[in-house]
Amino acid sequence: MIRTLSELAEILDARLDGDGNTLIKGVSSLENGGPGQLVFAEDKKTFQLAEKSRASAVILPPDSRSLGKPALRVEKPRLAFARVAEIFAPDRLAGKGVHPTAVLADDIQIDQGVVIHPHVVVEAGVKIGENVKIGAAVFIGKNCVIGAETRIYPGARILADTEIGRSCLIQSGAVLGSEGFGFVQAENGHLRMPQLGKVVLEDQVEIGANTVIDRGALDPTVVGAGSKIDSQVIISHNVRLGQECLVVSQSGIAGSSILGNRVRLGGQVGITDHVKIGDDIMIGAKSGVSKDTPEPGIYFGIPAMPARKAFRIQAGLRNFDRLREQLKELEERLKLLEGDRKERE
Amino acid sequence: MIRTLSELAEILDARLDGDGNTLIKGVSSLENGGPGQLVFAEDKKTFQLAEKSRASAVILPPDSRSLGKPALRVEKPRLAFARVAEIFAPDRLAGKGVHPTAVLADDIQIDQGVVIHPHVVVEAGVKIGENVKIGAAVFIGKNCVIGAETRIYPGARILADTEIGRSCLIQSGAVLGSEGFGFVQAENGHLRMPQLGKVVLEDQVEIGANTVIDRGALDPTVVGAGSKIDSQVIISHNVRLGQECLVVSQSGIAGSSILGNRVRLGGQVGITDHVKIGDDIMIGAKSGVSKDTPEPGIYFGIPAMPARKAFRIQAGLRNFDRLREQLKELEERLKLLEGDRKERE
Amino acid sequence: MIRTLSELAEILDARLDGDGNTLIKGVSSLENGGPGQLVFAEDKKTFQLAEKSRASAVILPPDSRSLGKPALRVEKPRLAFARVAEIFAPDRLAGKGVHPTAVLADDIQIDQGVVIHPHVVVEAGVKIGENVKIGAAVFIGKNCVIGAETRIYPGARILADTEIGRSCLIQSGAVLGSEGFGFVQAENGHLRMPQLGKVVLEDQVEIGANTVIDRGALDPTVVGAGSKIDSQVIISHNVRLGQECLVVSQSGIAGSSILGNRVRLGGQVGITDHVKIGDDIMIGAKSGVSKDTPEPGIYFGIPAMPARKAFRIQAGLRNFDRLREQLKELEERLKLLEGDRKERE
Repeated sequence: MIRTLSELAEILDARLDGDGNTLIKGVSSLENGGPGQLVFAEDKKTFQLAEKSRASAVILPPDSRSLGKPALRVEKPRLAFARVAEIFAPDRLAGKGVHPTAVLADDIQIDQGVVIHPHVVVEAGVKIGENVKIGAAVFIGKNCVIGAETRIYPGARILADTEIGRSCLIQSGAVLGSEGFGFVQAENGHLRMPQLGKVVLEDQVEIGANTVIDRGALDPTVVGAGSKIDSQVIISHNVRLGQECLVVSQSGIAGSSILGNRVRLGGQVGITDHVKIGDDIMIGAKSGVSKDTPEPGIYFGIPAMPARKAFRIQAGLRNFDRLREQLKELEERLKLLEGDRKERE
Repeated sequence: MIRTLSELAEILDARLDGDGNTLIKGVSSLENGGPGQLVFAEDKKTFQLAEKSRASAVILPPDSRSLGKPALRVEKPRLAFARVAEIFAPDRLAGKGVHPTAVLADDIQIDQGVVIHPHVVVEAGVKIGENVKIGAAVFIGKNCVIGAETRIYPGARILADTEIGRSCLIQSGAVLGSEGFGFVQAENGHLRMPQLGKVVLEDQVEIGANTVIDRGALDPTVVGAGSKIDSQVIISHNVRLGQECLVVSQSGIAGSSILGNRVRLGGQVGITDHVKIGDDIMIGAKSGVSKDTPEPGIYFGIPAMPARKAFRIQAGLRNFDRLREQLKELEERLKLLEGDRKERE
Repeated sequence: MIRTLSELAEILDARLDGDGNTLIKGVSSLENGGPGQLVFAEDKKTFQLAEKSRASAVILPPDSRSLGKPALRVEKPRLAFARVAEIFAPDRLAGKGVHPTAVLADDIQIDQGVVIHPHVVVEAGVKIGENVKIGAAVFIGKNCVIGAETRIYPGARILADTEIGRSCLIQSGAVLGSEGFGFVQAENGHLRMPQLGKVVLEDQVEIGANTVIDRGALDPTVVGAGSKIDSQVIISHNVRLGQECLVVSQSGIAGSSILGNRVRLGGQVGITDHVKIGDDIMIGAKSGVSKDTPEPGIYFGIPAMPARKAFRIQAGLRNFDRLREQLKELEERLKLLEGDRKERE
């Protein structure tokens, strides 16, 4: 696919600065751009890189200096770049209709434009919306509902009763609807508490590779609209995640915890069970949240506390030796005074 | 499926308190119960919720107050609820016989009642016990043995030589029998130490979604009877886990470590290699165990120490600033005395 | 397979010490060796175990005492043992040609000796080198390149454009080429930044079970030759890992970070995004690296610091109570002096 810079300017509603006939056939990093490629720059450092780049054109803020190549001027260069990149992105789930090796139950409902790749299994009662694309070897269990435009990458496992909204992305190896870690002590060991709830993903949710979302024990586990979950995350039974949250890799949210909107978890964060996290809260990487955290702000540490406090403690710890030395020194000086006193007696 | 409350009373050996003809068609959470549903309550807070609930009946302790609806009276309401829930739970691996798209080696042994879903692969020498149910796209490698009544969810990978006991549950994406991280320094880099051992799961073991259990290097990796492993856990080569252990999500146990019976690991715990953990030990979430831990008790921290000590240190750290202030104050007071002394000289 | 000790001596270039006709049919741990098995020992403790072992022969250092059984004498017993173990190791991907249930695109290139197991999917444009073995249900996306002698275990997902070198090992459930966690804030939420780069694994790389490696955003994500990645690791977009690195289970490396050669990460380590880690650096288990770390050495802690310093702080913390007591004691002594001074006034 090839576009002229003028065409891209129109798509982006950008101001064209230079030759509109410049042909663009893709996007590139600043380091590796070449002829036919478009890059973006948004600050001093990236201006310099873009200037040196062999890329044919650049997306720039409205009033920055010229970089000696045609430019598209926009308020938010990074956002505009994402949009252009989408135009040139290959459709990795491209295909036509249902592959003959897919095993589909008789009574499923498939809307227009659906693509189903080889070795997919779709069980009874499933509903699949318009233009949904399902990669190879995906499993979709009984009575699942998959919203229109949703994309499921090869090898994801969507277990029975899961409801996925519109325009979601489920990556390879993700498991939705696993049975959570619920047991009751019985006479002869741990008895599994049956997990009868489901998983609900609202619209525009993304689930990363090998991430696991348990079905609810009774009521559903819910991921709110627009929330993005990275790879290898675990979201346990009956968690409710608000809208527009971001959860980075290898974080875990234990059972029944409730997170507000726009919550951000860094990598390898742990949230204990049955806690409430308010809106607009950010938890730093590797932190462990062990109690309700209602106030917006940045938290850090094990257990998590306001980041400013956590960093002050960390700084103190780095000078821990110094503290002990000070103590020792004080004692020496005290001894001297005490000796003095003895003398006077 | 519908049951009368009388029938359930008989199954549970419960005392019926109210109309035994009440029809029950399922279980529910306290928050969302409706007609035909059964809930349970076991303390003051849940009594109130159960009273308000529109559920038709409730499981209660023997002597609690009446909640205005028919009740089943038992010693352990939660345990009774788990048993009723099991009655109403759908069999998500229901099916009949072997699906024609499954690829089965010629010489495998399959007992009565086995269900094998689409796209399963079973290699040579495998033995599958009575009533085992194997979900779609499961792989079972050469010479594996699967005990009776065991259930394997879609997309689990059971690699060669793995032995699974009776009544186990293996969830989606779990990998049993991967090759552990064993290398020897050779002239030209790290040479893999061949991993020739197997994985043994004893009876009633559960393995969560996307959990990985490495085969032993030479002798087997073993998970003891009744132990339950949550999702995204890694159990490395030659680990031996005792009976009735509980390992929460995203924990990792490094090579050759030996855990006793009834050990509980919180989420995101790490156990280093070649350590011994005794019976009845609980390790708090996010802790790191770096040495032998024989004494029963609760441990916490990086490195893990008796929880009481760890929490005291944490409390101290929260007042770390105060400590430095105290030190400063002492120094001021000391200076005053020292000045005094100088004067006297 | 059976070998005489003489044959093994020749293969290993070892000095034969005892009966060269001893028949060896496998290797064993020191604890469980039996007739026909070979063990190795390299220090006092293992000499004793080898002496008691019922194994038929032992690999020993050149000048250690005799253990009462035939021996192979070599400089590096463990390395020699790895080589013998490899001889007796079963080929778990053994097979012939392409299984009829595999779905292969028309235009792929397959070299001699390739084995493709049931239910594999290979998309258009893929090139597969000599003697590559691909386990059941593996997915290989468009335009991937798989180097000669590489082995891919059942259920791994190799997404479009991934390049794998020679003699690599990709274990079950690994995902190569997932889309990284890149979003841009748009008017109506987080807009995905298209991920257009690829994954490059150089020669002799190993990837553990359920590990995830994101494709680059624009430029590739690279794992250097000879590096070994354990299970459940996440390597994010645009990370560049040097040669001969070792990354233990459940570690995560965030976007665009660059690691040198021979870097070793313990288990559950986190490396933040956009940092540089030098050559010959070792990061202790559970540590969190939050900044550039150029100097070779051992680092530990959250945030990671030179291990010596981290351990000193830890030791200090264990005596934290003592520190507070000391402070209290000093204050008492100071009070006494102050009282004294008052008296004099």
